[in-house]
Amino acid sequence: MTEVVDRPAGKGHKPATTAHPVTDHAQPAVNVDALGRQLLGKWAAVRLQSRDLAGRPELHKIEGMTHSDHRARVSGQLKYLVDNSAVHRAFPSALGGSDDHGGNIAGFEELVVADPSLQIKAGVQWGLFGSAVMHLGTEEHHTKWLPGIMSLEIPGCFAMTETGHGSDVASIATTATYHPETEEFVVHTPFRAAWKDYIGNAAIDGLGAVVFAQLITRGVNHGVHAFYVDLRDPRTKEFLPGIGGEDDGVKGGLNGIDNGRLHFTNVRIPRTNLLNRYGDVAPDGTYSSPIASPGRRFFTMLGTLVQGRVSLDGAAVAASKVALKAAVHYAAERRQFNASSHTDEEVLLDYQRHQRRLFTRLATTYAAGFAHEQLLQKFDDVFSGATDTDADRQDLETLAAALKPLSTWHALDTLQECREACGGAGFLIENRFASLRADLDVYATFEGDNTVLLQLVAKRLLADYAKEFRSVDFGVLARYVVGQATGTAIHRTGLRQVAQFMADTGSVQKAAIALRDEEGQRALLTDRVQTMVAEAASALKGSNRLSQEKGAALFNRHQNELIDAAQAHAELLQWEAFTEALRDVTDPGTKTVLTWLRDLFGLSLIEKNLSWYLMNGRLSMQRGRTVGEYINRLLVKIRPHALDLVDAFGYGDEHVRAAVATGAEKIRQDEARAHFRAQRASGKAAVDEKVLLARTAAGRHS
Amino acid sequence: MTEVVDRPAGKGHKPATTAHPVTDHAQPAVNVDALGRQLLGKWAAVRLQSRDLAGRPELHKIEGMTHSDHRARVSGQLKYLVDNSAVHRAFPSALGGSDDHGGNIAGFEELVVADPSLQIKAGVQWGLFGSAVMHLGTEEHHTKWLPGIMSLEIPGCFAMTETGHGSDVASIATTATYHPETEEFVVHTPFRAAWKDYIGNAAIDGLGAVVFAQLITRGVNHGVHAFYVDLRDPRTKEFLPGIGGEDDGVKGGLNGIDNGRLHFTNVRIPRTNLLNRYGDVAPDGTYSSPIASPGRRFFTMLGTLVQGRVSLDGAAVAASKVALKAAVHYAAERRQFNASSHTDEEVLLDYQRHQRRLFTRLATTYAAGFAHEQLLQKFDDVFSGATDTDADRQDLETLAAALKPLSTWHALDTLQECREACGGAGFLIENRFASLRADLDVYATFEGDNTVLLQLVAKRLLADYAKEFRSVDFGVLARYVVGQATGTAIHRTGLRQVAQFMADTGSVQKAAIALRDEEGQRALLTDRVQTMVAEAASALKGSNRLSQEKGAALFNRHQNELIDAAQAHAELLQWEAFTEALRDVTDPGTKTVLTWLRDLFGLSLIEKNLSWYLMNGRLSMQRGRTVGEYINRLLVKIRPHALDLVDAFGYGDEHVRAAVATGAEKIRQDEARAHFRAQRASGKAAVDEKVLLARTAAGRHS
Repeated sequence: MTEVVDRPAGKGHKPATTAHPVTDHAQPAVNVDALGRQLLGKWAAVRLQSRDLAGRPELHKIEGMTHSDHRARVSGQLKYLVDNSAVHRAFPSALGGSDDHGGNIAGFEELVVADPSLQIKAGVQWGLFGSAVMHLGTEEHHTKWLPGIMSLEIPGCFAMTETGHGSDVASIATTATYHPETEEFVVHTPFRAAWKDYIGNAAIDGLGAVVFAQLITRGVNHGVHAFYVDLRDPRTKEFLPGIGGEDDGVKGGLNGIDNGRLHFTNVRIPRTNLLNRYGDVAPDGTYSSPIASPGRRFFTMLGTLVQGRVSLDGAAVAASKVALKAAVHYAAERRQFNASSHTDEEVLLDYQRHQRRLFTRLATTYAAGFAHEQLLQKFDDVFSGATDTDADRQDLETLAAALKPLSTWHALDTLQECREACGGAGFLIENRFASLRADLDVYATFEGDNTVLLQLVAKRLLADYAKEFRSVDFGVLARYVVGQATGTAIHRTGLRQVAQFMADTGSVQKAAIALRDEEGQRALLTDRVQTMVAEAASALKGSNRLSQEKGAALFNRHQNELIDAAQAHAELLQWEAFTEALRDVTDPGTKTVLTWLRDLFGLSLIEKNLSWYLMNGRLSMQRGRTVGEYINRLLVKIRPHALDLVDAFGYGDEHVRAAVATGAEKIRQDEARAHFRAQRASGKAAVDEKVLLARTAAGRHS
Repeated sequence: MTEVVDRPAGKGHKPATTAHPVTDHAQPAVNVDALGRQLLGKWAAVRLQSRDLAGRPELHKIEGMTHSDHRARVSGQLKYLVDNSAVHRAFPSALGGSDDHGGNIAGFEELVVADPSLQIKAGVQWGLFGSAVMHLGTEEHHTKWLPGIMSLEIPGCFAMTETGHGSDVASIATTATYHPETEEFVVHTPFRAAWKDYIGNAAIDGLGAVVFAQLITRGVNHGVHAFYVDLRDPRTKEFLPGIGGEDDGVKGGLNGIDNGRLHFTNVRIPRTNLLNRYGDVAPDGTYSSPIASPGRRFFTMLGTLVQGRVSLDGAAVAASKVALKAAVHYAAERRQFNASSHTDEEVLLDYQRHQRRLFTRLATTYAAGFAHEQLLQKFDDVFSGATDTDADRQDLETLAAALKPLSTWHALDTLQECREACGGAGFLIENRFASLRADLDVYATFEGDNTVLLQLVAKRLLADYAKEFRSVDFGVLARYVVGQATGTAIHRTGLRQVAQFMADTGSVQKAAIALRDEEGQRALLTDRVQTMVAEAASALKGSNRLSQEKGAALFNRHQNELIDAAQAHAELLQWEAFTEALRDVTDPGTKTVLTWLRDLFGLSLIEKNLSWYLMNGRLSMQRGRTVGEYINRLLVKIRPHALDLVDAFGYGDEHVRAAVATGAEKIRQDEARAHFRAQRASGKAAVDEKVLLARTAAGRHS
């Protein structure tokens, strides 16, 4: 049907059986090992250590367990991680950690391939609970609690979200009111909606918690702060007086984690349990903070917890890679229908639609992976203190808010498409697509709802735009754009670079002439973001003269296009990351193939938004029609390299663990084909009735 | 933020609390009861009976069970259905059925809201196993086996799919070879890929099976036929000699069904176990059939099993309705962020993006529901014998192949969007989105893989096109378009009507002037199908002069666009069904609101494919830009009627069974708001630090 083999010759891989010869011996070859090393990125050593652990049966998810058994198993696995020194990299050297922030995340996110519940429960314990003590607390807190948190002596909760408030953290209703007479805070849940909810470790394991509450002292509410609260008696595991809760029960996935609800009835904690790095209360009740603005203080505190988003971004990419490896390998072996021959059936991966389904997602996975590496680098730069200005922190947050929604949605989409591409087999839990998809479902919600995050990105873009065009009236933005200190430099995650690029290269229309070229793609993708933001800004102009209600209504009428603009921006960041990564590829064959893949990513984005380019005169009708054709040609070019491209992800059978990816399908196909071949050779095969009828008809006519 | 209430005044429903007055008292109101009656359709009585059953706790899915317990529970529920006379409607009156084919499906598909495993396991027993005996067997078989199948004395399997062949049923490899000396067929599995796989009831419960195998007699293979085979000893439940199998294990969902594998080693069955309605073997081995063409015979046999697709289509719509009812009710109560006021937070359903997410899917659900009712009617017409020509059967199959992919994908998309729209709560299994989504996942694959079905539709469209333009060279089509008897009338599910419409109304460009009007939408949607098919046909022209291999390669290069054309056709059929249903609405307010919803559906389709309309000169750039704006206006118009529109689905709390849809959120919100109101009134509320700072700043400046 298509004239390719599964691997170009000379790659060390045995080519899959095919009746078709290689027609172009000059075609490039991917250096799988070198590409694999590049994909491992800066924290390759940690990743490999973590993959070694993730490949061990002790850490694998056992499917079909009850949620109680699964919870118990994952709790035990956390101890295994401690015993194997896998989870303390981010903590201070003084306490046995290694102050390695980027490496810590790289290691965590690889655990998703063992069991997403393990990744997330470990993330709750050390990434959220432990990190909150580390980043929001001060040395006394570190000395007191971090050792027990690190050793798992104190399993704990990160009690921020409430039943009534998830996305809008500033509005949580739990209070911590200071009483100078006893030098205590009273932590209190005023009504049902203020129960903490969806809290990992809350249903069973949590002995302690970092509880987020409105800090009230001397009659003033200083906003959300974090407090260390003991939850349960370590001996009896019973709730301490004043504390109650509920089990969240079975969930759509991640059932190895005991999520639950917590409520507090006038629970007294010592003054010193306030994690006081960004806000403190003196014994007499005087509040003080190194950050004067309550808004900026709140966002600074939340900003220290950005690593959750970073690690979800990386884990989503890892899960996508594992799924694609399984689905592409299966598609290269599985045969169905024999349109092109009487005897041989087609390999699924030779069908155009199948290529579209898998290769476009493969391209996006590469883009998301390279973008994640940049995010991780940025995260490490900030948290190591290498480049830790306000602007750097804002850039980090914008980048995380932009990339996490795209990669988590992409993982769900990829897992589902791979599931469907493997047919009924894809639905069997032994092939893991459905299991991973169920577990990753909530990645689109926690650590920041994807839609809400994209809205944050949109607000940043509007703010950047407003800064650039100060003459324009952007009063309304002040109400929506929070935490944007004036005068800060605008860095690469924001809009400025986009505008800069436009100034550098002149008209988009001109650049777009070669939409297959890097510059053409960049111009089109960049221009779309720029123009969408400018249009939204223009539509919102003058809204500061409206009442708060009418201003909000105006903003709401443009909400959809703002979120679309943010997504376009995030896609551009992914495309730029892919393009930058191409520069680091030295092997010419690999570079050629990866460039096709980057082009496929870029053109898929342009195709998805083709109506915008047409409506806005960026592409002519005629040029628009070439996009789909060019994508189809890229699919054919990429086809011989598909196995190399998924093998370069570096995941072994112990990580993929899918029956469809074991080569069993090829053995079955070979056995079936050998059976029919032998039957034909024996001359004893039953004659097909259709053939018989054709012969009879031919006899009549001759 | 937006000036609406949740319900227009005077509708009997208590309006949700809102600070905003109704600004337009002349706005239409939906007659929920009348609309609900219309949505119940022709088989309203059966649907209501089935919903009564589906609302009973005995039939509800219990979440968190092991798959073994779940299987046992669902097996017991099947007996409950028998005891409640719920599942025999399609069977002959003589045997205690009621020859009611449409009603039978209507009843079955409602069971999905109790537990999709129950729907599907019942479907396996009576819809597949029982139907195969009924439709492929003759009276002797009916008398012998149907009573036991109906009473569940013989739980059984529909053993068609093999590990090696799912979509391409004609190529299954199990053989049934006739031996005249013993008057027996020998059923045999020649290799591993020929094991029956994914077969419901095979792992545990199945005592009998209808096994599909290549019928070989006198050295000729007459193609796939169905054979009745006893699988297990009814007493010991052990496999009979020569039969073996495996459990498919845990699946991504539907774990109440015991799917498994089966293989046969020279299993001898009596000659009379051939279900011989469409093909028989005489004692001496002579084959005979009322259908001379082996191809047509095969498709006739498979065609009798179309009801599986029909019922999946209906069940997918039912699940979408339940999910939307829950998510829309929650969104009308849930509040988050307070952009428009210092004291009150916004209701989620007032956010533009949230409306986009839910209302576009609500519109599609209505469209899919009306289209399903037409499909069910067509099914009943054919199977009752009212209009049962070859052309009618082909139309029925095309319609089912077109609608089932769209509705099942739509259900998955809707369940996921509703899940995400409810945030973390959506992920709790108590809210059922994740559970339903997991169970419905495989609806996209079984009873015909969605992609493969759309390809069948595309081939039908090409065949219709070829018939209409006979002068054109369509030799290649003969190879791909199967079962298209020449000279048959082309009915409404095919392309002819499209062309006819175009001829009737003249140029599309002219009609498109009013894209908000029915005729404008129809012209645009119809023209796209017509043009895409014509373009594909033109691209394939002359392929019959190519070798089989090159012809297949040419076809493959256009596979993606052919599938897109089929989807466009299916969407048009949904749109037409919605539009036809509007004619039956008598209440003017209901008609107005439903027309907005139909417009939202039509314009969403046009928006999704806007690049096509622009590239092909069907819409100007300027007009293209109005599509999104008009959709946004429709969202605002529909907003006040959203609760009525989901309530009209007629599902009660016993069907929805989602904590988010119980009104608990409103109680929590009211309690929280009352708390803060009382606090403000008391004068004892803590002052917000931000307010304090603003006051201080004002004091300094004054």
